[in-house]
Amino acid sequence: MSLIIIGTVAFDAIETPFGKTDKIVGGAATYASLAASYFYKKVKIVGVVGDDFHQDDIDTFTTHGIDTEGLQIKEGEKSFFWSGKYHNDMNSRDTLVTELNVLADFDPIIPESYQDCEYLMLGNLTPQIQQTVIKRLKNRPKLVVLDTMNFWMDVAMDDLLETLKLVDVLTINDEEARQLSGEYSLVKASKKILTMGPKYLIIKKGEHGALLFHEDKIFSAPALPLAEVFDPTGAGDTFAGGFIGYLAKVGTVNFNNMKNAIIFGSALASFCVEKFGTEKIVNLSEDEVAKRVQQFVNLSSFAIEA
Amino acid sequence: MSLIIIGTVAFDAIETPFGKTDKIVGGAATYASLAASYFYKKVKIVGVVGDDFHQDDIDTFTTHGIDTEGLQIKEGEKSFFWSGKYHNDMNSRDTLVTELNVLADFDPIIPESYQDCEYLMLGNLTPQIQQTVIKRLKNRPKLVVLDTMNFWMDVAMDDLLETLKLVDVLTINDEEARQLSGEYSLVKASKKILTMGPKYLIIKKGEHGALLFHEDKIFSAPALPLAEVFDPTGAGDTFAGGFIGYLAKVGTVNFNNMKNAIIFGSALASFCVEKFGTEKIVNLSEDEVAKRVQQFVNLSSFAIEA
Repeated sequence: MSLIIIGTVAFDAIETPFGKTDKIVGGAATYASLAASYFYKKVKIVGVVGDDFHQDDIDTFTTHGIDTEGLQIKEGEKSFFWSGKYHNDMNSRDTLVTELNVLADFDPIIPESYQDCEYLMLGNLTPQIQQTVIKRLKNRPKLVVLDTMNFWMDVAMDDLLETLKLVDVLTINDEEARQLSGEYSLVKASKKILTMGPKYLIIKKGEHGALLFHEDKIFSAPALPLAEVFDPTGAGDTFAGGFIGYLAKVGTVNFNNMKNAIIFGSALASFCVEKFGTEKIVNLSEDEVAKRVQQFVNLSSFAIEA
Repeated sequence: MSLIIIGTVAFDAIETPFGKTDKIVGGAATYASLAASYFYKKVKIVGVVGDDFHQDDIDTFTTHGIDTEGLQIKEGEKSFFWSGKYHNDMNSRDTLVTELNVLADFDPIIPESYQDCEYLMLGNLTPQIQQTVIKRLKNRPKLVVLDTMNFWMDVAMDDLLETLKLVDVLTINDEEARQLSGEYSLVKASKKILTMGPKYLIIKKGEHGALLFHEDKIFSAPALPLAEVFDPTGAGDTFAGGFIGYLAKVGTVNFNNMKNAIIFGSALASFCVEKFGTEKIVNLSEDEVAKRVQQFVNLSSFAIEA
């Protein structure tokens, strides 16, 4: 049994009010698999890179016990590259460069050893590639989580709607939930989206936390107020990875476990933004994670006597 | 022992995407005192109206057990009038009309029977009037809560800073916290503001809930996701009134009680926005309030085993 994470594995160059980086390793699958590895030991990655991706970079995955058999390395080609600059409020950013490179004709390969997949995280990619991965798995996983973004709603809405029919959990932000549903109220948006395929909807609200919708139930998770957000890149992917990694560890999918999974995902994401790129989340101790989760408990607990 | 609430008592004309009203009773002290009356029986109001304010309107307070001896009625003058139109997102609005009328030279009178004040809510008014009320009380109340807004930071910052030195709790929204402190991060903003006088800072984030800061502790309260926000007018005042009313009822001021008070205040505010003006909050049953509070408990509770 394993957890497969598919998504971009890439180089990013990031500029924030606090500084800038050269090309550093990034990508949705990178953040998500690292985050998941803190909770679950059988994480397997699916993605594609060029030969500019070095052994050191692959070793980072291996060190975290992440299986990279499904990570294709294209000789003579270059990895996906993204460069962006965050504004002072850290909530908005400009994309400076997007070079698809190997991603332009990415055809995901599912190694035979990955066919034991029980948990599947479909990181942000074209809905068609996400759908292909589901179809190439001989058995339908116990849980399929899909992350997407407004870009695919703009250019590939039909594909996205087809793919959504195949998934259990959708993670998007509030603006994307409004775009997908055509409803401003997140309650109304969630009701519509829960008829599109997913049984669970997670709306990520960044510094305002996250909402989980399922049937007629809602869970509101807080975000940890931080003195400084150093670099928000990858926070959403880290959240998703921590979320599904925790669920894979627990092994039972239900609303209560999802609530906890959101807290664990949020805790990992709160580390992610403290340093550039993956710098913080490659080196966390169990104790650090446990303490951070306890901060979330303290942050949101109250005791009202009925 | 009593809870005094000072603030505007006014007429509002409101337009939202759902409809519009003629002149209806509004004002910070109206919303706050009605909300507080659900928890505490000795609520006393301080404010000023013109002779266009009718006995019926005063009866609404009396019916809720609210003492109106401190509500001055100026013969031959008109009550404060505000008219506003909300945009489709309900988060922003245009002020169409502001007629100060009796408010222009408001000099708050504290009746002798109000001198037993133990809890004081200073609703949004000029910082100078807020300060005057504190000084006209012979004994310093056990708890002074102040609500203010960006307008006073723009035109009366020095007065506001003087007044802040005299209060225990400040309630403002996130943008106001940033303006008051000059810090974008709410954590940094709170640290600065907690050196200005208040020992507790509540940052209201509307649909994203509220944050309570005290010493090195933070509490994050959720907002109830609503299918429809009908009219947000008075929600912040209703929150503040429910908050201080609950604390007055409990009688002990500490961080844990403040957390609960924020939940009760949020519950009342969630009713407020369901109808125009005070329509919903003039007619709540104990059972409705208890059920709404339970919804907040369900919304934010999770159980993580360490």
